[in-house]
Amino acid sequence: MSENKNPRDNASTTEELTRGVHVDTQVVDEVRIAVAQRDATGVGKALDELDPADAADVVEQLSANETQAAARLAPEAFGGDVLAELSDDALEDVVESLNPTQIADAINDMEFDDAVQLIEELGERLRDGVLSILEPGIRDSIKNSLKFEEDSAGRLMQREFVTAPQFWTVGQLIDHVRKAPPDTLPEIFYEVYVVDPAFHPIGSVALSSLLRAKPATTLTEVMAPLRAVVTPQMDQEDAAYLFEKYDLPSAPVVDAEGRLTGMIMVDDIVEVLQEEHTEDMLALAGVNEAGLADTILETVRSRVPWLAINLGTAILASGVIAMFSDIIAKIVALAVLAPIVASMGGNAGTQGLAVAVRAIASRDITSANVRRIILREITAGLINGLIFAAIMGPIAYLWFHSVLLSVVIGAAMLINLLIAGLAGILVPLGLKKLGADPAVASSVFVTTATDVIGFFVFLGLATLILL
Amino acid sequence: MSENKNPRDNASTTEELTRGVHVDTQVVDEVRIAVAQRDATGVGKALDELDPADAADVVEQLSANETQAAARLAPEAFGGDVLAELSDDALEDVVESLNPTQIADAINDMEFDDAVQLIEELGERLRDGVLSILEPGIRDSIKNSLKFEEDSAGRLMQREFVTAPQFWTVGQLIDHVRKAPPDTLPEIFYEVYVVDPAFHPIGSVALSSLLRAKPATTLTEVMAPLRAVVTPQMDQEDAAYLFEKYDLPSAPVVDAEGRLTGMIMVDDIVEVLQEEHTEDMLALAGVNEAGLADTILETVRSRVPWLAINLGTAILASGVIAMFSDIIAKIVALAVLAPIVASMGGNAGTQGLAVAVRAIASRDITSANVRRIILREITAGLINGLIFAAIMGPIAYLWFHSVLLSVVIGAAMLINLLIAGLAGILVPLGLKKLGADPAVASSVFVTTATDVIGFFVFLGLATLILL
Repeated sequence: MSENKNPRDNASTTEELTRGVHVDTQVVDEVRIAVAQRDATGVGKALDELDPADAADVVEQLSANETQAAARLAPEAFGGDVLAELSDDALEDVVESLNPTQIADAINDMEFDDAVQLIEELGERLRDGVLSILEPGIRDSIKNSLKFEEDSAGRLMQREFVTAPQFWTVGQLIDHVRKAPPDTLPEIFYEVYVVDPAFHPIGSVALSSLLRAKPATTLTEVMAPLRAVVTPQMDQEDAAYLFEKYDLPSAPVVDAEGRLTGMIMVDDIVEVLQEEHTEDMLALAGVNEAGLADTILETVRSRVPWLAINLGTAILASGVIAMFSDIIAKIVALAVLAPIVASMGGNAGTQGLAVAVRAIASRDITSANVRRIILREITAGLINGLIFAAIMGPIAYLWFHSVLLSVVIGAAMLINLLIAGLAGILVPLGLKKLGADPAVASSVFVTTATDVIGFFVFLGLATLILL
Repeated sequence: MSENKNPRDNASTTEELTRGVHVDTQVVDEVRIAVAQRDATGVGKALDELDPADAADVVEQLSANETQAAARLAPEAFGGDVLAELSDDALEDVVESLNPTQIADAINDMEFDDAVQLIEELGERLRDGVLSILEPGIRDSIKNSLKFEEDSAGRLMQREFVTAPQFWTVGQLIDHVRKAPPDTLPEIFYEVYVVDPAFHPIGSVALSSLLRAKPATTLTEVMAPLRAVVTPQMDQEDAAYLFEKYDLPSAPVVDAEGRLTGMIMVDDIVEVLQEEHTEDMLALAGVNEAGLADTILETVRSRVPWLAINLGTAILASGVIAMFSDIIAKIVALAVLAPIVASMGGNAGTQGLAVAVRAIASRDITSANVRRIILREITAGLINGLIFAAIMGPIAYLWFHSVLLSVVIGAAMLINLLIAGLAGILVPLGLKKLGADPAVASSVFVTTATDVIGFFVFLGLATLILL
């Protein structure tokens, strides 16, 4: 293999170490060619030389068929370290080509929370097969985690963490960690939780504070009060919010009695944030879950439902136009101008909607300021309406030489931009209040409102004033 | 004050410790009332009793005027710990009410990277005033950081980190940390960088590995190879991608010669991810930077530019309708149906666009698979087109009883959804290739294409077939 594809631990230059920001497309091509030639050694060699995270990136570039073929040819290249880094879609493709023993081996090499994510992606039969091979201890832990709802904090938590009673000294704690059997400790941890006799966490000691302290110091002296705890039932978005707000590297998870039961690490939260980012963007654009899916069929299936709903609302809006067929036949300019009013309303509504969805997610809108923000959006809508009425009126006059027509479009623009301001804030707030995700379905409601009202107001005013 | 508002370090129940997921609107009201009554003690007391991150959340709920008044009344409640947690908008409002000495005091209490973010928000005169009060060492470091571009990794990095030569033992390193003057070490750190004599980082030792190892172990035995380094010039999004990919708690920053010059912590990356999330959503919806701004004027200003551009493209699309005025005057059904074709195209285009923008950001589209993905989008567009042509044709027939008209709208639907598939993927890829942010401006191009082509194809086909 060429010089610059040595394993990562020989990498030394800045160039090599910042290479991870791009996917190595050359290796993607190598794997693809090896797959096409059914060259198992080639597939294995190309992937093995990479950091597991880079290998995962390469696999994510392959088509579903190529991924399955690669995993069939070189299952040993798809160990736990690589599977832990794969996206859900790619993971699904890989596991289809692995047998239960291979998957169980990978799980034994993985962090607990990654193992749970892998098990989630398996079909029922494969899942049962894999679970039956696993050691009873791991099997039961995984089954317990799966009892928590998808997207709950419980699914993210690992069962290993380090605790100490509050009467210990720093020296005692360090001795305890040094002597603990390695498999009873998490591989990586950033803090130790100090617990009371009932196993309630009462504080945390950052490892950097532990290192700095003299061995005779008691833990209570170096302990920081807990700023937040997570419950397994908590939505993963809420857990992520706590991490962001309190700058946490990890967080203790407590059960209903307040006893320490697990730990969530920030790297899982970083993944949650990326997931939620994708979900929100796709939801606002009307794409269902499988949005980044690989196959054409899945792609179509993820988009048809919202397109069908959009067709319904578009027909509704056209029904409004149809009500005014007579005046349109007389004044064709109305058919020319009506879409402008609707388009401006849709655009302004979407703007307000995007702002509101983000503000709700980041707790910038709460009951304490919701009135002020609604008022701000309505006023902004009114001002936007005045601005674009003042612009569009003269344009319509220059185009169709009718003062009345330019008054009609100006007034319709004003009203529709006001409606857009209202809908852009009230629709997501209303969905939130109903317990729904404000990113989902909001745009349909908003654009339906601005289309229907835009057409109705413009054509209605035209009927009143021009006839 | 009431029982449940004790300071955080007395909090003990799960309920109290998970309270952080919601903003305490009761305290917001208390602060608001105290501000209205010009009750400086009330403002100070309400905020001081909270964790700084919670106090920041409360302040973010206030209007710009209330925030400024609160900071004027009780500047001591806006120390470095609170300012570090404030959003940029709220921070801007607070600093307007503080004098240079108060700001300099806050900066001396802050982590270095937070201090840089604070200085960024100051107007030029205030900035100079504050910088002149700061100690020369801090002043120079801040000035150096400000030399890096906004949104670059250099702005996120802190100057304190812990290093060790590779020939040290674990015991030597722990002794070194214990004896180091506290202000030469970062307050929190998760790993120690092992450096060669030229100060190039060659590996990292996680503190948890350090704790577990026997004192006589050499660092090279517990050291892990670096999986990534960051350069100060790197875009903060790329740095965030490295953190996500390699599950990093912190990352070394190296200068052009590869020498260790700083460290970035994961909590700053979590903030970057949230910022980018907001930016992307607002960009796709056509809202400028100051999207979450507080005042009505700022709100209007953040939305008018893209509304103006939308007006231009809507007029362009209407120009297409105007070209077909004659046939519309004869067959008004065309005016009724044309917006449906355009709306479906716009919707399908936006779906593809959102998927593409996220896939580009998460490196799921690269040169290695771009052809396959373009082909997937075009094929999906074609299939969507066939589906909705098959649905809309019969609907148009039932509505207007014209076979030819239903053939025209079916054909136009097919073509426009194909165009939508093409535009949804090619526009963001093209913008990316030109070095632009694919989230910005993409939707305008896509919906302009689907509007103009939708109207043109539908009305053009109608002219050919129906006349």
